Amino acid sequence: MRLILASASAGRLGVLRAAGIDPVVHVSEVDEDALAATLAGATPAELVTALASAKAEAVATKIVGEYPDAVIVGCDSMLHIGGELVGKPGYAEAVVRRWQAMAGRTGELLTGHAVVRLERGIRIASTSGVQTTVIRFGSPSPEEIEAYVNSAEPLHVAGGFTLDGRGGWFVEGIDGDPSSVIGISLPLTRRLLSELGTAVVSLWS
Amino acid sequence: MRLILASASAGRLGVLRAAGIDPVVHVSEVDEDALAATLAGATPAELVTALASAKAEAVATKIVGEYPDAVIVGCDSMLHIGGELVGKPGYAEAVVRRWQAMAGRTGELLTGHAVVRLERGIRIASTSGVQTTVIRFGSPSPEEIEAYVNSAEPLHVAGGFTLDGRGGWFVEGIDGDPSSVIGISLPLTRRLLSELGTAVVSLWS
Repeated sequence: MRLILASASAGRLGVLRAAGIDPVVHVSEVDEDALAATLAGATPAELVTALASAKAEAVATKIVGEYPDAVIVGCDSMLHIGGELVGKPGYAEAVVRRWQAMAGRTGELLTGHAVVRLERGIRIASTSGVQTTVIRFGSPSPEEIEAYVNSAEPLHVAGGFTLDGRGGWFVEGIDGDPSSVIGISLPLTRRLLSELGTAVVSLWS
Repeated sequence: MRLILASASAGRLGVLRAAGIDPVVHVSEVDEDALAATLAGATPAELVTALASAKAEAVATKIVGEYPDAVIVGCDSMLHIGGELVGKPGYAEAVVRRWQAMAGRTGELLTGHAVVRLERGIRIASTSGVQTTVIRFGSPSPEEIEAYVNSAEPLHVAGGFTLDGRGGWFVEGIDGDPSSVIGISLPLTRRLLSELGTAVVSLWS
């Protein structure tokens, strides 16, 4: 039984490796923006779950020949703050604006999780769940925001911050699960795997 | 200006490196048990602060010749649960008992921080602070506890768990700063450095 991570995120891979699992990484080619556009009326929790499921299902279809016995985990993270749902800023000016807007405030980082189980080449079950973690942002100075943007770290992560990198200096605290903020909740993944009959420790290397 | 980490903890070093600082590591030879014994009436917060200060001051004295311009950071972490202050379990049976006692319960992970600043070989200032983070433990099965003990990870960490390793599967959530649980709070260290006139981004590599 192998765990397949349906994500290109270095953060998610790092969380799993540090927690004793060396997954096979297969990136889905799901068009996230196109899918999100079809879900205009969805709640933030429904949206991240739908995106996580689409990724896990797409990868399950792709790898079933090579890995007939596997659990495929898909995730999608977004920051919900000030009534807005925020993805990856993508470029420097957007990071600056994001931090100006969120400094000293509180947001919710939602991570949707979906797990698909394959047995002897058959998709026998799937499940999903969302972890919501409250983030209390600090108030970095303009010089600190500039240095952070220059590090390039915040450009391609949900909400324009990381918890386990340089962004950690500017997050005062959280209420929830820190691994969910990095991109994959360990306790929720453990529960979802258990629902599908897989003990997480059986996947440890 | 160099940051000197007065700790042998791989967790603390990892947090700092991931957050953009590559510190010089100098381990103090403070006899923690002997010092703690002289502080029998201290509160948990006073105890971790005193231990952090002793480590930072001892290393400052040792390295001042080699690094006349430096900030020395010392830390000490303990888990406060059920009215007890818990350090490193040290051996397998103690980890099993610890997890049996704390499964499904809530504790507080206290990390004391002390920073000493050297300028041209003179100890010009110091400051300290404590970060307290609430930990909501999950309920690992006997098989999961056994697998966790066998990984050796929990033996030599405060409270017999880690947040950023295999222990993360068994922590449902926290309220506070995750980096403080790994052993060094990034936002608190940023504030303490700032108090001593050092912007954390000036230490980034």
